[in-house]
Amino acid sequence: MRIALDAMGGDNAPYVTVEGAIETVKDIKDIEVILVGNEEVLQDLLSKNSYPKNRIVIKHASQQIAMDEDISVALRRKKDSSIRRGIELVKKGEAHAFVSAGHSGVVMATALIMLGTIKGVKRPAIAATMPTLKGRVVLIDAGANVDTSAEHLLQFAIMGSAFSESILGVSSPKVALLSIGEEDTKGNELTKETFGLLKNTSLNFIGNIEGKDIFKGDVDVVVCDGFIGNIVLKVSEGLADVILKMLKREIAEIVTGRIAYLLMKPAIKNFKRKTDYAEYGGAPLLGIKGTCLISHGRSSSKAIRNALKLAYKFAGRNFNSIISESLAKYNSESDSVLSEIMI
Amino acid sequence: MRIALDAMGGDNAPYVTVEGAIETVKDIKDIEVILVGNEEVLQDLLSKNSYPKNRIVIKHASQQIAMDEDISVALRRKKDSSIRRGIELVKKGEAHAFVSAGHSGVVMATALIMLGTIKGVKRPAIAATMPTLKGRVVLIDAGANVDTSAEHLLQFAIMGSAFSESILGVSSPKVALLSIGEEDTKGNELTKETFGLLKNTSLNFIGNIEGKDIFKGDVDVVVCDGFIGNIVLKVSEGLADVILKMLKREIAEIVTGRIAYLLMKPAIKNFKRKTDYAEYGGAPLLGIKGTCLISHGRSSSKAIRNALKLAYKFAGRNFNSIISESLAKYNSESDSVLSEIMI
Repeated sequence: MRIALDAMGGDNAPYVTVEGAIETVKDIKDIEVILVGNEEVLQDLLSKNSYPKNRIVIKHASQQIAMDEDISVALRRKKDSSIRRGIELVKKGEAHAFVSAGHSGVVMATALIMLGTIKGVKRPAIAATMPTLKGRVVLIDAGANVDTSAEHLLQFAIMGSAFSESILGVSSPKVALLSIGEEDTKGNELTKETFGLLKNTSLNFIGNIEGKDIFKGDVDVVVCDGFIGNIVLKVSEGLADVILKMLKREIAEIVTGRIAYLLMKPAIKNFKRKTDYAEYGGAPLLGIKGTCLISHGRSSSKAIRNALKLAYKFAGRNFNSIISESLAKYNSESDSVLSEIMI
Repeated sequence: MRIALDAMGGDNAPYVTVEGAIETVKDIKDIEVILVGNEEVLQDLLSKNSYPKNRIVIKHASQQIAMDEDISVALRRKKDSSIRRGIELVKKGEAHAFVSAGHSGVVMATALIMLGTIKGVKRPAIAATMPTLKGRVVLIDAGANVDTSAEHLLQFAIMGSAFSESILGVSSPKVALLSIGEEDTKGNELTKETFGLLKNTSLNFIGNIEGKDIFKGDVDVVVCDGFIGNIVLKVSEGLADVILKMLKREIAEIVTGRIAYLLMKPAIKNFKRKTDYAEYGGAPLLGIKGTCLISHGRSSSKAIRNALKLAYKFAGRNFNSIISESLAKYNSESDSVLSEIMI
């Protein structure tokens, strides 16, 4: 498997991307990583390390896109960016997947323009994996689309369920629709319409889920509009940070605080490790003709390593044909519902 | 001041409501509480306590609305519910405010039907107060409306700012719009349109805020649609629970865990106290002609006490005339913007 990695993308690139690539090829025997970016810089970094030389190659790209660059300007002016060159490798069949911790908006737009969507997919969506009390949950869409329709949400549910089953190994994933009450009559116009569509599929749709229940771990896939998904993702990230800070402050203020903190420090470390986004590596952009994974801008080498491993899994599964088949299946289901109504 | 309390509303009513009322009248000298509910039950509970008799009275209501009852059925069939009778007292001018930890949907609908909205208010909204790293933040709308327009959100901003300033005592509250990026071009159609309206007011509008920044405490009022607000509120509640549980589990698993937990227990207690919704008592339904506060269904007597105190503050400020004036001011602002454009 050959995975193209945006070596220049992310806050800590190219150090952590090169490091992540090296760790990955040492760990998995049949993976090759193509580092996409400034050849001179990357060659210099690589030369300081020992690694299986034949399994890391460099694809030169002269330009780099900053994290806060305007998407349309970046697309127009940076034809030789590491993102564009990387996705090009996927398009040409020279890489099985592309991973980037760079500008997610540019990655999405470039992938959409250069690779296009799988036949039948109306909108690609980001599937973000988050930790829960019992394991993990997939949130789809985590930010690729705002202002979506019920039909889009139905497709997100189908793609999210396929991801959970085929890549994360969950059998018959429980799919829920994010809303403001469990009853099917609760929600806004979009969720009420989507509820009606979802209950007529053979997905394991368990109904609406409220915000308070997402992290309990009783559901495998949570479906929502990308605007809301992005807010949920970021509220969770921000709140976890704030809660830990507040707890530390309270611990520091009690008499036994210093010793308590020292004694519990390994537990905090374990907690942080288990809930670290780096554990999940990256969020796939589902529905694109080709595999693209978006990693956190603050990615560590561990996050890059896990993203490369996830990309490797995708490539091994021929995931896009699974999506095509799932969509075709649900389309024929809705056709038969339609024809029943018409008879 | 006379505050009507839905003595039958909430998971732990009427025990905690009666307890909360007694604590309140002992604490504040010029407050009277009207307990609305089953006279026999309430009299029995009261008789077991000592309190200033003349400052707690009972208003009989023969019916009680369960937390999961259908709103329209409850409105139609329960004309003698504690919620209806309580709001009636506000309408008749026999109470300055109404507090309920009961069915929030029924409280909202009843208040809207019986009291109506303040002149100029298009939609009432729930202003929920949440703890942050530095203090607290008001989230408006926290669930009264789904499918709102930009003009509604503008009014929520105005009402939320007035609440923060007049009731919570924040001078020139910083108002932000919840979106998926800080730039004014980021968001969905609704937030982009709302951004345009907000920047033309004399509100202290600081722009968009992302989900991850809500709890940092740099903003006083966060404006959003009620569907999203409710999800944010519940995600926060659920996540805080889950994080504490996960941390406890990690602490239990390390060798020094038992002793560490014992030593830090007071800190966890302090943390829980400071972040407890009971600290904030209740969320006002802003824009209604009359003061109505909605408390958490799981309210403790402390939450009831704090809700009664908040209602007391509202009643003392003649808050609804502040809202009227704010709205009139912003309407004339937008008229002058309009006339400038037309000239």
